[in-house]
Amino acid sequence: MLPGVGVFGTGSTARVLVPLLKAEGFEVHALWGRSEDEACCLAKELDIPFHTSRSDDVLLHQDVDLVCIYIPPSMTRQIAVKALGIGKNVVCEKAATAVDSFKMVTAARYYPQLLSIMGNTLRFLPAFVAMRQLLVEGYVGEMQVCDVRVYGPSLLDQSYGWTCEELMGGGGLHTVGSTIIDLLSYLTGARAYRVHGLLRTFVQQNGLIRGIRRVTSDDFCFFQMLMGGASSTSTAVCCTVTLNFNMPGSFVHEVMVVGSTGRLVARGTELYGQRNGSTSEELLLGDAGWVGPEVKEMPLPHLRGLSSMVKALRQSFQAHEERRSWAPGPVAIAPTFEEGLYVQTVVEAVKRSSCSGEWECVEIMSQEPDPNHNLCEALQRNKN
Amino acid sequence: MLPGVGVFGTGSTARVLVPLLKAEGFEVHALWGRSEDEACCLAKELDIPFHTSRSDDVLLHQDVDLVCIYIPPSMTRQIAVKALGIGKNVVCEKAATAVDSFKMVTAARYYPQLLSIMGNTLRFLPAFVAMRQLLVEGYVGEMQVCDVRVYGPSLLDQSYGWTCEELMGGGGLHTVGSTIIDLLSYLTGARAYRVHGLLRTFVQQNGLIRGIRRVTSDDFCFFQMLMGGASSTSTAVCCTVTLNFNMPGSFVHEVMVVGSTGRLVARGTELYGQRNGSTSEELLLGDAGWVGPEVKEMPLPHLRGLSSMVKALRQSFQAHEERRSWAPGPVAIAPTFEEGLYVQTVVEAVKRSSCSGEWECVEIMSQEPDPNHNLCEALQRNKN
Repeated sequence: MLPGVGVFGTGSTARVLVPLLKAEGFEVHALWGRSEDEACCLAKELDIPFHTSRSDDVLLHQDVDLVCIYIPPSMTRQIAVKALGIGKNVVCEKAATAVDSFKMVTAARYYPQLLSIMGNTLRFLPAFVAMRQLLVEGYVGEMQVCDVRVYGPSLLDQSYGWTCEELMGGGGLHTVGSTIIDLLSYLTGARAYRVHGLLRTFVQQNGLIRGIRRVTSDDFCFFQMLMGGASSTSTAVCCTVTLNFNMPGSFVHEVMVVGSTGRLVARGTELYGQRNGSTSEELLLGDAGWVGPEVKEMPLPHLRGLSSMVKALRQSFQAHEERRSWAPGPVAIAPTFEEGLYVQTVVEAVKRSSCSGEWECVEIMSQEPDPNHNLCEALQRNKN
Repeated sequence: MLPGVGVFGTGSTARVLVPLLKAEGFEVHALWGRSEDEACCLAKELDIPFHTSRSDDVLLHQDVDLVCIYIPPSMTRQIAVKALGIGKNVVCEKAATAVDSFKMVTAARYYPQLLSIMGNTLRFLPAFVAMRQLLVEGYVGEMQVCDVRVYGPSLLDQSYGWTCEELMGGGGLHTVGSTIIDLLSYLTGARAYRVHGLLRTFVQQNGLIRGIRRVTSDDFCFFQMLMGGASSTSTAVCCTVTLNFNMPGSFVHEVMVVGSTGRLVARGTELYGQRNGSTSEELLLGDAGWVGPEVKEMPLPHLRGLSSMVKALRQSFQAHEERRSWAPGPVAIAPTFEEGLYVQTVVEAVKRSSCSGEWECVEIMSQEPDPNHNLCEALQRNKN
C-alpha cells in the first residue's frame, strides 16, 4: 500500500515532483512553503488539500508517511533529521555543509528501518543504469578516464536568494556538480580520494542582483577527481568535470567513460558506445520521447531521473501492506545519506582546492567537529 | 619569385607537405632522411631530384633557399640554427626542450632578415582565422572560458621511437597540446601565466612495444591555463584542455570560447557561434570539402592548417623578385620562434605541475641556463 506523502518546497523541483507522485498513485496530503502565500498558491495549483508554513504541521500530519524535502540546502538538515525522529520515511535533497550531512547520517543510522535516500539523483536515469551495467560487464575494459561536461544557462533565481550565495549551498558545483560526483561514484564503483578544482563567478551582478548585492556562488567550475584505491595510484580513474552556466540558450549534459577497450558516452538521456575495434559509435539506448511535464528550469536528465526515482519508490512501497513499510530492492541504487555525506565532502574539498590551488584529499568526517572550532573558522572566513 | 625548398624529414607531415608545396608552385630540390634508405624511398615516391642523409648536403644546396624541418623534436634545434647561420629561411616544427627553443630564438634574433616560423600551427586554419576575427570584433563579449578537447587514436609510431619517449618530445601534450597552447594564445591575444595539469600513460606497452621497453610519453593529459594579465586575476581567461589518445576510431577536435555575451566553437574545421539572446547555434564557417591529399595519421584541422600555411608562404615569397626575399604580411599570423619558446615553456610548466600537483608559473627563459646546472638536474631526474 502506498504511503501518504508530505512535500516540503515550492520551487521548480517540488512543482514537478507532485504530478509525478500522483501519476504513480501516491496521495500528496500536505505541502509546506516558506511563506503562507507561496504554500497556498502552489497547493491550489497542484490540488493539495493541506498547506502550511509551519514544518511540524506536515511532519506530524497523520496521513503523511513519506516526506519529500526539496528546499534550500541550508534548511534541509533540520527538516530531514526531525522527520526521521518522528518516524517518517525521508527523500531529500542535499544539505548545505558536510556537518549538516553528517548529522543526517547519524539520524539515518539511528533509524535504519526508515527509508532515507538522497533524492537529487541521476542514478535512476535509464541511460546511466544501462551504462553502469555495461561498465560492470566490461564494455570499456579497464576504466581510465571519465569526462563530464554540463553547460547551460544561469542557475540563479529571478530574485536574490540562496542560489546567489556560496555559503548557502548555491552555485554550479554544489547544485549540479554534486549530482555528477554522486553519479561518477555510482558508475565507477569507486570514490574520489584526491581532487583539484577551480571555481569562478564570472557574472557577479546582473539586472536583478545589483547595488551592494553580489553573487558569490560559482557559475563556472572545473574539477578533477582521482578515483579508486588510494594505495595504487596507477589504477586510479581520472575524472574531469567542466560545469559552465554562462551559456544561455544551450544545454549540454555529457558523461563519457573511456577504458582500455572502448568507451561509453551518455549525451542528455541517450547512451552511445564504441569499442576500440569499431569505426563508429553505436546508439545503445535511445530516448523514446518524454511524455511527462516539461519544465524550463529542469534539464531533461534530471527530470527523467526524478521520474524514474518516483517509479522506484512506488515499487518499493507497494510490495508491502503496511503504509510505512518498504522493500529495499527497488531503491537499492538510490544514494544513501552516507553517500550524501561523501558527495558533500568532495564538494568542500574542491572548494578548498580552488582556494589553495593544490590537490586536496577527500576525508570523510567520522565524528562531529567541535562547534567552537567551527565558530573560529567562520570568524576567520569573515575576516578575509 | 618562389624560393627553392629543401625538406627535412620522411614522416607523415613531410609526406603531406611536399605535394602541398608543389601545388603552390614551389620546387622541392632536396630531401633529407635519417637513413639513406628512407630518404631514397620517399624522394622517389615524391619525385624529388636529390636526397641525402647528411644534413649539410641540403643546407648547403645552392638551389635551396627555404628549409622546411619536420623531424623528431630532439633534432630540430640543431638543423634550424644551422640553417639560419647559412642564411636560409626556416619553417620548422617544435623543438624538444625550452633550452633548445631558446637557442633557436637567439639564432632568429640574430638573423631578423630571414624568415623563421614555427610550422606546426593551427593558426592558418580558416575557422580559427575567422574565430580570431570575431573575438576581436566582440562576438562573445568579454572572454571567460576556453574549453578544448582533442580525442583520437594513439600517437605512437608503429615501432619504438621518439614518440614513445617523454624526454624526446613524445606524447600528447608535446605533440598536440603544444599546437593548442599556441592556438589559444593566438585566439585570446594573451599568454598563460599559471598552469596546472595531469599527465598519464595508460598504455605503457602494446603488441609492438614490450619486453623491457615501456612508453613514457603521455596518452592522456588535461591541463588548465590562466591567461591574461597576471596582475588582475579577475579578468583572467580560464582555459581547460583535455587530450585523450586512447580512443581509436574517433577523432574529436573542438575549441570553444565562452564570453559574457556569446560563444564560438570550432568543431573540426567548421566554426559555429551562438549569441546569448539566440536559441540556437549558427554555422559561421562551413567546410567546403577537402580536395587535397588524405592522410590517415594527420587530422583534418592540422592538414588544412598546413595547406593554408603553404599558401601564405607562397604569397609571402612571390611578392618579391629575389628568391630569398619575402614579405612579412602574409605570414604575419605565423608563430615566431619566440612564440615557440613560449609554447615549450608552457608544456614544461604543465609537466612540472603534473609532478608537483601544484599550479606552476610560466616563466619565459631570458638567458641560457648554465649547462652544468642542467647536468645536475638530469642526474637528479634519473635518480627518481
